[in-house]
Amino acid sequence: MKPILTVGSVAFDSIKTPTGEFSHLVGGAATFFSIAASFFADVRLVGVVGEDFTEEHSRVFAGRRIDLCGLQQVAGETFRWRGEYSADFSKRETLYTRLNVFEAFKPEIPTEFRSSPVVFLANIHPSLQLDVLNQVNSPDLVALDTMNYWIEGTPNELRAVLARVDVVIINDEEAQQLSGEANLVKAARAIRAMGPTHVVIKRGEHGVLVTRGERLFAVPGLPLEDVRDPTGAGDTFAGGFLGYLSSMPTVTEENWNQAVIAGSAMASLSVQDFGLGALLNLTKTEIGNRFQDFKSLTHFDAL
Amino acid sequence: MKPILTVGSVAFDSIKTPTGEFSHLVGGAATFFSIAASFFADVRLVGVVGEDFTEEHSRVFAGRRIDLCGLQQVAGETFRWRGEYSADFSKRETLYTRLNVFEAFKPEIPTEFRSSPVVFLANIHPSLQLDVLNQVNSPDLVALDTMNYWIEGTPNELRAVLARVDVVIINDEEAQQLSGEANLVKAARAIRAMGPTHVVIKRGEHGVLVTRGERLFAVPGLPLEDVRDPTGAGDTFAGGFLGYLSSMPTVTEENWNQAVIAGSAMASLSVQDFGLGALLNLTKTEIGNRFQDFKSLTHFDAL
Repeated sequence: MKPILTVGSVAFDSIKTPTGEFSHLVGGAATFFSIAASFFADVRLVGVVGEDFTEEHSRVFAGRRIDLCGLQQVAGETFRWRGEYSADFSKRETLYTRLNVFEAFKPEIPTEFRSSPVVFLANIHPSLQLDVLNQVNSPDLVALDTMNYWIEGTPNELRAVLARVDVVIINDEEAQQLSGEANLVKAARAIRAMGPTHVVIKRGEHGVLVTRGERLFAVPGLPLEDVRDPTGAGDTFAGGFLGYLSSMPTVTEENWNQAVIAGSAMASLSVQDFGLGALLNLTKTEIGNRFQDFKSLTHFDAL
Repeated sequence: MKPILTVGSVAFDSIKTPTGEFSHLVGGAATFFSIAASFFADVRLVGVVGEDFTEEHSRVFAGRRIDLCGLQQVAGETFRWRGEYSADFSKRETLYTRLNVFEAFKPEIPTEFRSSPVVFLANIHPSLQLDVLNQVNSPDLVALDTMNYWIEGTPNELRAVLARVDVVIINDEEAQQLSGEANLVKAARAIRAMGPTHVVIKRGEHGVLVTRGERLFAVPGLPLEDVRDPTGAGDTFAGGFLGYLSSMPTVTEENWNQAVIAGSAMASLSVQDFGLGALLNLTKTEIGNRFQDFKSLTHFDAL
């Protein structure tokens, strides 16, 4: 059992989708990641919130395997984001992003977290991601998420951190943009040449494609009738994926693939309710059943 | 072993893709279907060509398990199509479609083909598809392809033939258009209510989604570095899929899933060369290896 250190945003999300509209939901990359991962492993969250983040809001973390001693509370307002999804959920428009207390965020890793064997750098400025890696003692596994904004805006900083990362978890457009290759096999190879040994490409409703060296593993999206809110699905995937890997005594080919399914299962459960709604009420049995749904969805016998 | 009757186009294709350009290649839905299916089963092709379709062109069928006694040759030119693919292969523009001898085509099913146990109605006017079904003696399995042109233009004729079909093989946009449902689970259910018990949804590079009643089976696309020409991939899928099913003594859940993989394997091999290039030189060993590639791509152990 290896504890996971994660650094990223804790936020208030306001979301409109074709199935409803909610304001001021607790969200953020580190939040979705931590709650998803905590079903499998111990999680150490480093982030920042403002004075408007009350005891009530903190309750989403309560009773879970999440250590919050790295979650600072400072003067000002918590990070806020407002977004709206298109009729078929395929596009998302950001109406505003207010960094608030996140703007001056400098991650300070508590001493007792510095030997964390697994690290997840959620999508923040690559210089902050690098700063986190400079504070930890040679973890076994470092995974990173990023986005088009950093790929375009801070390519050198991103390259510097990528050189020290084992696993990149990004979407298909980001993989293409980062590598300059339209073909995903070539894109993944180009990204591996930047440092990571593993590239995990999230394809939304089309599932996930993973490359480990020249090996490929793919899982289709589970077709769902009742998608309500895709917000946080990528971080929830990362949480299930790294949480599952961290719960294994050693990382083998086989539990690597299972971890991709665990991540896919968590993400597919998450999108069936708004914000953290689905994750907060989830049971181990439901996770096991969803894992089995992926097995039925994709299983066939060899010839 | 059940012979397959197929009715559809035999054509000359002129194709431009980001990797090359070829004119006057032998193509057409019934051609791709028949050649792919003939690796697994006996095929009976019904179609029409013009005087410009020479002995030389017929050679694509030679030495295969394809009975051409239903392929008429008449005065005039063979069906011609010219198309061009976008840089990432995701879009295709038709530059022209010249029906030529296909315009007056009235399928006449030779007497010895009328008891064919399996029928594939390639993408032609739904009234002609119905006309074919009126000439055959209660086949065990009827599969149909169609396209947006008929869904919009001849909805009543299409509904009439769908009521007599077991398997619909269409792409995701066509499934949405035919059903009026954006969600593919709902779309497939609405299509099943029109008659077919099985809906096979082709998603291009994202693979295939199959529904049988409320059961779902999905296979991701095999990521390929060297796509050269997607023309005919859908019909090649259908050929591998129905060919495999026809080669089985009975149709079980398990060989149904394997048939989807066989179709996916054939399609993924086909797109690696222009026109029929890849299919014409294919060996059983290569097909078996590609099937195995899909197994490695998607396999994971249950928890």
